[in-house]
Amino acid sequence: MKLWDKGGQVDAQIEKFTVGLDRELDNQLAKYDVLGSIAHITMLESIDLLEKEELLLLKQALRDIYKDIEAGNFVIEDGVEDVHSQVELILTNTLGDLGKKIHSGRSRNDQVLVDLKLFFRDKIRELVGDITTLFNSLLAQADKHKDILIPGYTHLQVAMPSSFGLWFGAYAESLIDDVISLHSAYQISNQNPLGSAAGYGSSFPLNRQMTTDLLRFDSMNYNVVYAQMGRGRVEKNVAFGLANVASTLSKMAMDVCLYMSQNFDFLTLPDALTTGSSIMPHKKNPDVFELLRSHCNRIQGLPMQITLMMNNLPSGYFRDLQLIKEEILPALDEMQECIHIAQYAIDNLTIKDNIIQDPKYRLLFSVEEVNKLVLEGVPFRDAYKKVGLDIQDGKFDTDYNVAHTHEGSIGNLCIDQVKDKMKKVTSQFHFEKLDEMTHDLIGK
Amino acid sequence: MKLWDKGGQVDAQIEKFTVGLDRELDNQLAKYDVLGSIAHITMLESIDLLEKEELLLLKQALRDIYKDIEAGNFVIEDGVEDVHSQVELILTNTLGDLGKKIHSGRSRNDQVLVDLKLFFRDKIRELVGDITTLFNSLLAQADKHKDILIPGYTHLQVAMPSSFGLWFGAYAESLIDDVISLHSAYQISNQNPLGSAAGYGSSFPLNRQMTTDLLRFDSMNYNVVYAQMGRGRVEKNVAFGLANVASTLSKMAMDVCLYMSQNFDFLTLPDALTTGSSIMPHKKNPDVFELLRSHCNRIQGLPMQITLMMNNLPSGYFRDLQLIKEEILPALDEMQECIHIAQYAIDNLTIKDNIIQDPKYRLLFSVEEVNKLVLEGVPFRDAYKKVGLDIQDGKFDTDYNVAHTHEGSIGNLCIDQVKDKMKKVTSQFHFEKLDEMTHDLIGK
Amino acid sequence: MKLWDKGGQVDAQIEKFTVGLDRELDNQLAKYDVLGSIAHITMLESIDLLEKEELLLLKQALRDIYKDIEAGNFVIEDGVEDVHSQVELILTNTLGDLGKKIHSGRSRNDQVLVDLKLFFRDKIRELVGDITTLFNSLLAQADKHKDILIPGYTHLQVAMPSSFGLWFGAYAESLIDDVISLHSAYQISNQNPLGSAAGYGSSFPLNRQMTTDLLRFDSMNYNVVYAQMGRGRVEKNVAFGLANVASTLSKMAMDVCLYMSQNFDFLTLPDALTTGSSIMPHKKNPDVFELLRSHCNRIQGLPMQITLMMNNLPSGYFRDLQLIKEEILPALDEMQECIHIAQYAIDNLTIKDNIIQDPKYRLLFSVEEVNKLVLEGVPFRDAYKKVGLDIQDGKFDTDYNVAHTHEGSIGNLCIDQVKDKMKKVTSQFHFEKLDEMTHDLIGK
Amino acid sequence: MKLWDKGGQVDAQIEKFTVGLDRELDNQLAKYDVLGSIAHITMLESIDLLEKEELLLLKQALRDIYKDIEAGNFVIEDGVEDVHSQVELILTNTLGDLGKKIHSGRSRNDQVLVDLKLFFRDKIRELVGDITTLFNSLLAQADKHKDILIPGYTHLQVAMPSSFGLWFGAYAESLIDDVISLHSAYQISNQNPLGSAAGYGSSFPLNRQMTTDLLRFDSMNYNVVYAQMGRGRVEKNVAFGLANVASTLSKMAMDVCLYMSQNFDFLTLPDALTTGSSIMPHKKNPDVFELLRSHCNRIQGLPMQITLMMNNLPSGYFRDLQLIKEEILPALDEMQECIHIAQYAIDNLTIKDNIIQDPKYRLLFSVEEVNKLVLEGVPFRDAYKKVGLDIQDGKFDTDYNVAHTHEGSIGNLCIDQVKDKMKKVTSQFHFEKLDEMTHDLIGK
Repeated sequence: MKLWDKGGQVDAQIEKFTVGLDRELDNQLAKYDVLGSIAHITMLESIDLLEKEELLLLKQALRDIYKDIEAGNFVIEDGVEDVHSQVELILTNTLGDLGKKIHSGRSRNDQVLVDLKLFFRDKIRELVGDITTLFNSLLAQADKHKDILIPGYTHLQVAMPSSFGLWFGAYAESLIDDVISLHSAYQISNQNPLGSAAGYGSSFPLNRQMTTDLLRFDSMNYNVVYAQMGRGRVEKNVAFGLANVASTLSKMAMDVCLYMSQNFDFLTLPDALTTGSSIMPHKKNPDVFELLRSHCNRIQGLPMQITLMMNNLPSGYFRDLQLIKEEILPALDEMQECIHIAQYAIDNLTIKDNIIQDPKYRLLFSVEEVNKLVLEGVPFRDAYKKVGLDIQDGKFDTDYNVAHTHEGSIGNLCIDQVKDKMKKVTSQFHFEKLDEMTHDLIGK
Repeated sequence: MKLWDKGGQVDAQIEKFTVGLDRELDNQLAKYDVLGSIAHITMLESIDLLEKEELLLLKQALRDIYKDIEAGNFVIEDGVEDVHSQVELILTNTLGDLGKKIHSGRSRNDQVLVDLKLFFRDKIRELVGDITTLFNSLLAQADKHKDILIPGYTHLQVAMPSSFGLWFGAYAESLIDDVISLHSAYQISNQNPLGSAAGYGSSFPLNRQMTTDLLRFDSMNYNVVYAQMGRGRVEKNVAFGLANVASTLSKMAMDVCLYMSQNFDFLTLPDALTTGSSIMPHKKNPDVFELLRSHCNRIQGLPMQITLMMNNLPSGYFRDLQLIKEEILPALDEMQECIHIAQYAIDNLTIKDNIIQDPKYRLLFSVEEVNKLVLEGVPFRDAYKKVGLDIQDGKFDTDYNVAHTHEGSIGNLCIDQVKDKMKKVTSQFHFEKLDEMTHDLIGK
Repeated sequence: MKLWDKGGQVDAQIEKFTVGLDRELDNQLAKYDVLGSIAHITMLESIDLLEKEELLLLKQALRDIYKDIEAGNFVIEDGVEDVHSQVELILTNTLGDLGKKIHSGRSRNDQVLVDLKLFFRDKIRELVGDITTLFNSLLAQADKHKDILIPGYTHLQVAMPSSFGLWFGAYAESLIDDVISLHSAYQISNQNPLGSAAGYGSSFPLNRQMTTDLLRFDSMNYNVVYAQMGRGRVEKNVAFGLANVASTLSKMAMDVCLYMSQNFDFLTLPDALTTGSSIMPHKKNPDVFELLRSHCNRIQGLPMQITLMMNNLPSGYFRDLQLIKEEILPALDEMQECIHIAQYAIDNLTIKDNIIQDPKYRLLFSVEEVNKLVLEGVPFRDAYKKVGLDIQDGKFDTDYNVAHTHEGSIGNLCIDQVKDKMKKVTSQFHFEKLDEMTHDLIGK
Repeated sequence: MKLWDKGGQVDAQIEKFTVGLDRELDNQLAKYDVLGSIAHITMLESIDLLEKEELLLLKQALRDIYKDIEAGNFVIEDGVEDVHSQVELILTNTLGDLGKKIHSGRSRNDQVLVDLKLFFRDKIRELVGDITTLFNSLLAQADKHKDILIPGYTHLQVAMPSSFGLWFGAYAESLIDDVISLHSAYQISNQNPLGSAAGYGSSFPLNRQMTTDLLRFDSMNYNVVYAQMGRGRVEKNVAFGLANVASTLSKMAMDVCLYMSQNFDFLTLPDALTTGSSIMPHKKNPDVFELLRSHCNRIQGLPMQITLMMNNLPSGYFRDLQLIKEEILPALDEMQECIHIAQYAIDNLTIKDNIIQDPKYRLLFSVEEVNKLVLEGVPFRDAYKKVGLDIQDGKFDTDYNVAHTHEGSIGNLCIDQVKDKMKKVTSQFHFEKLDEMTHDLIGK
């Protein structure tokens, strides 16, 4: 069943190719399709394109479908092209001709646009929740290991003292900036495209502000041509938010793999989280972090993949854009799995003691020595030269006490301030509005 | 002169390779280096690492350098490695040993980080200004040409009526979402890295909140390891903001090139803005829009270029990151030139009349006909089938009156609401703080 | 069952994450794993690591597995990590301890390397076959439509006469260059990595030349560290070959979508190959070409995806590389489906007549006029100016006869020479060796 | 002066934007423009579009220009648009009207195509020369250090014994595969586009086989539409060859930076090749390898940059393609500088002794122990389990003798075979034809 069926016969090979993975992917959009439809018909009734009674019947049928979806009982049947067609099919099966009236004043173009935007809002909410949990884990580890010193490297050369407190805390703070970029994706998503129809609006006297309010969108994609142009742009901005999160996790995984090497030996994983080799009996490999890195590196390519699929297309809808779903939907799941695995593995890391005492790290403390001289009144450049010459002449002596006190330093991690910064960012999403919307439209 | 000179001799070929374009690029950072230094020494005096008298002398000397930079009289001399070294060189030439004291409690790593962040804040301000001007131009054109109908396409097939009002307005509204993503880049930039030194902080009792306030940063990169990790991340987020703007301009250019083709013939450029062919005497080519598109497509690759240069590096500074300046700094200028050119060319477009009357466009109005039937009470799907059959049987008759009234449609462009949306976004930057900072630190 | 099982327990969540899609993907490698194993044990017997009798038993068992694979009866069981483990499991189930001896002198690292290389050789053979069929179709269409003139565009401006003969023929010839780049991927694949074990060779006196000959590799990855380093590099080079093919099909699809627009109207598709709109009853959309373009644009991102996943990893194996299978294996199938669909759709295109007579194309013939003047002795630049002025003054008159005779021009498509060029390229692969290998190792 | 000047006035801002860097970049193409022109006029005379006398005059004038270019005396003057215009300007200044005749039967489109292809052939020759020198250096180092054992890592975990012989040799052999991919770029370049004019051929009876032979092209881009379509495709294939070389150097640089870390300490650089820190007096940093890595990572993005700039353009010339010169030309120089620097730095590496004796590496030899048991008749899996348990129980004893004998292993680097493989690849280019061409056309 196709919404645009004119009685002809579409070639089977072509149909397989054009439908692609739509049925599987559209399942994830089903809930949002129903929510969008309820908002749409509520508005249709307000402009007299539906009668009150019809609205009630349709709304109840849609709420029933919503419950089926939540219960896992919704399936896009073979021969049905997409989620929009399946929902309409159920409605006409139940309500006859009335079911067909739901499509007035919209097209599948704005329907899928609104589905995707509602879906992204929800997924970003889930993601931000997962990220916050990982963030808190990292800060807990930072606090727990704040006194374990490790060498800090620049150019992979031993440079200055660092600590596991700083190391864990750095990745926590990195996630805040990632959430900032997810917030811009959220803001771009959070604008109502419904009513743009096929990208050129409708001759019906739609009330787009009303659906904007019902669906708790912050604003509207006013211009109907732009609303359509948002297809792909929204996905790309979500993808860039993901790419940022992925870059944080990838870098952390790179560090862990390095630090687990016998040449660093800063930390280990329990046996249950490592894998072995088919020919080397002594191996315990951090495959989990390597795969985390590889997944995250792949995700970093997502914005470019989407760019390639939409770039240099003139304005107006093209079927090319549909394939972007095959990129972004699985990537959202992949990202979430990566965050969960990262969290799990981070919680299970075993941190080694007494790392810093190794003789190869003693020059770490040379800057401390320079600074002491400066505090005694020697100009910085001269102090720097003196310590440099001492080192060259083998006269440098290490003092392992590190007394860093300023904000964000080894001795003052500012964990509370970092938590506050995260809270300030996450509070801007106003995720509570999403529950309000569902409550209003579905009644729970 | 190198800040880390230990008296040895660096190989000439290696030096050429490692210095690269730093001298040229660093010139753009000079102003910000001075501002960062004034904030730093003000703080140093507050923790007794400088005396009041010394602060006054240094501040005056730095303000003089600032004025030289503004007057175009600042040059990084041959043999001087970078902007930081040049500024310190001038200070020691003027003030002797006192000049050396400025470097206490910081490293070139946090110095360049702060320079870049101050630079990006200013550049984003300029960009947002340029974008706003283009935005207003597009809306002015939309308003001017709101009654000129053109075919709206889906799949490049004639679909439904559109207008030049919608077309210009779409690209204007697109720029708002682009500014949203620039805002996230701005927020990520707008956090103080100063005091992180080489990425592991300092044993001096620095007051980082004080430099945060003096430099009007919204917040701080607390964790010193994360502050360093921001190198490249900030650039990548700025690059993504640029990629968004570029995608808007590229798409617009694609449309213009299509619409200038004799096969569309919707618009023209004056001769002075076109170029000819060396063998075809009749040609008037829209090279300017093609180059605009090509520049903008290149800019869309920028986030990936930066990703490639920083991905899979462990934490801690690497010289790799320096080369990112060679990507992002010229791209900012390229982006600005593209916006200026776009503005100039858009202002000079000549829009054709009577486009829609061409017979090949008459089916555009079929949906209008469907909707009329619906308003008369026919269920949508049945109306759709009827009009479809009428078309097949050659019985479809075109009515050129378009009466779209809802928000964002042909008849109701919502230009004021779109302007308000832009204002809401741009007001979040609080660019006025940048002037306050300069006034406080430079005294004007 | 894991080849490296040491009796511990791998965490379930971690196992799910680390195994990933390996079981599904490895099915495609099963045949090649068996072929590699037969070559390996034949060599082991020659260096006295297996007895003659043992070799016969193992070889027969492996041939039976090969037949099962071909018959579709081979499955990687739940709990079995990968194809290598499954094959070894079957062998030990059948032959007891003897089954374990097969793994002497190799590691899963060189085993999967050899599997992938044998797989890519076969897949490239299939691809080159598919491409050749499409190539011949395009040339047949070129020949059939060689007299149908269309406007040739530069800058999308009407420029000079072209023809469907040229248009179809161009994409055919494009495929030749794509096959050249596939040939370099083939050459890089066609080198034996077996014997490199985990990337550092083996203390067994392996005869790597012998397995090179048995598996009909052109040469060897001599250096065992480089053999391992080939992981990802081979895939990336195959991916670039695919990207080239994809760029040809994507561009062709772009042209078709443009030419099907009512504004060009050069060709159509039969109804069975188009799709409709849910709100516009008159629409016949070229979705199949749009999806072809989108798939092909995605494939063009593949080399970058692989680069992201392997870049900046030090030498030596990392589990990151495993995930590359999830990119390249499905892409090969996607590419083949695209070629088949392209072939099918190209064969069904309907070409319009009398395109060139439209008045908007009459200036196409201006260069012909310039050239006539030149042949009469007027210097080119002067002829060019004269015709340019004639056009400005409305004095230009069109002569629709096109008499291009040189190689590759409208009147002389050189189809035979183009076919010869393709044959010269494909003959360099020596695909016949692949059948020789299978015959020798499997005995059929 | 513009070849297409119709007397109008092109806007100054637009002109600056459209000319871009063409004048600078085109200087690199000047030699090839002259060579292409000499071939073109030789052919024009053969079809009676020039008289014998005219050919002689033009040829001599072009040879004089060639000598000026070689002497560094050729400049594209202000106001002259590109190299083609400058050459024609000189000819008309010298020979009057005769100078104008050179442009018959070609367009700037096929002129720049042929220039670029001749240029790429020469540049690839230079590159292959540079690569061969680096290749020989790496093999010399491999041979020199073949007895210095280092740990071989998988997953960055100590795995099996390796050596500096293997390590240097691996990167040498990697370069062979890179040259294979450059060879496919060379083959794609090595086809004559001249005569395709603006992409639609010419009504002159051109003899394209003659210019193919004169310019020593292997074959022709027959189809004139395809010849034009090659713009960008050739560059992309060259870029992919560069990306391969860059990936080899980047990985090598990553290893060096790791091995220079105090945590590995396998090698050092002389002071003259390192840089210091402005705050840490003890630092000696491998900036040169980090910048090498960063440049090479940037180059790996080049194929994607070019893809972005040409993707989804319909067939026919667009000015977009001109900007690709700004990407590929500097990248070729950057690549060459990287190879030179790599060569220089590799030659100056100091390799440490006695690396392997460190206690943390003793488990390296566990596989050797497994294999000994196998050679004594124990099935591999059982031997593997026994050694694994020995290690767990602290009973494993290290024997530092490594007796690997097979091809490509520690004890048998196969340097001669690797050299032969390289020779086989480079001999396929037939670079000697390039000198033959210059000799024939320029007479030296």
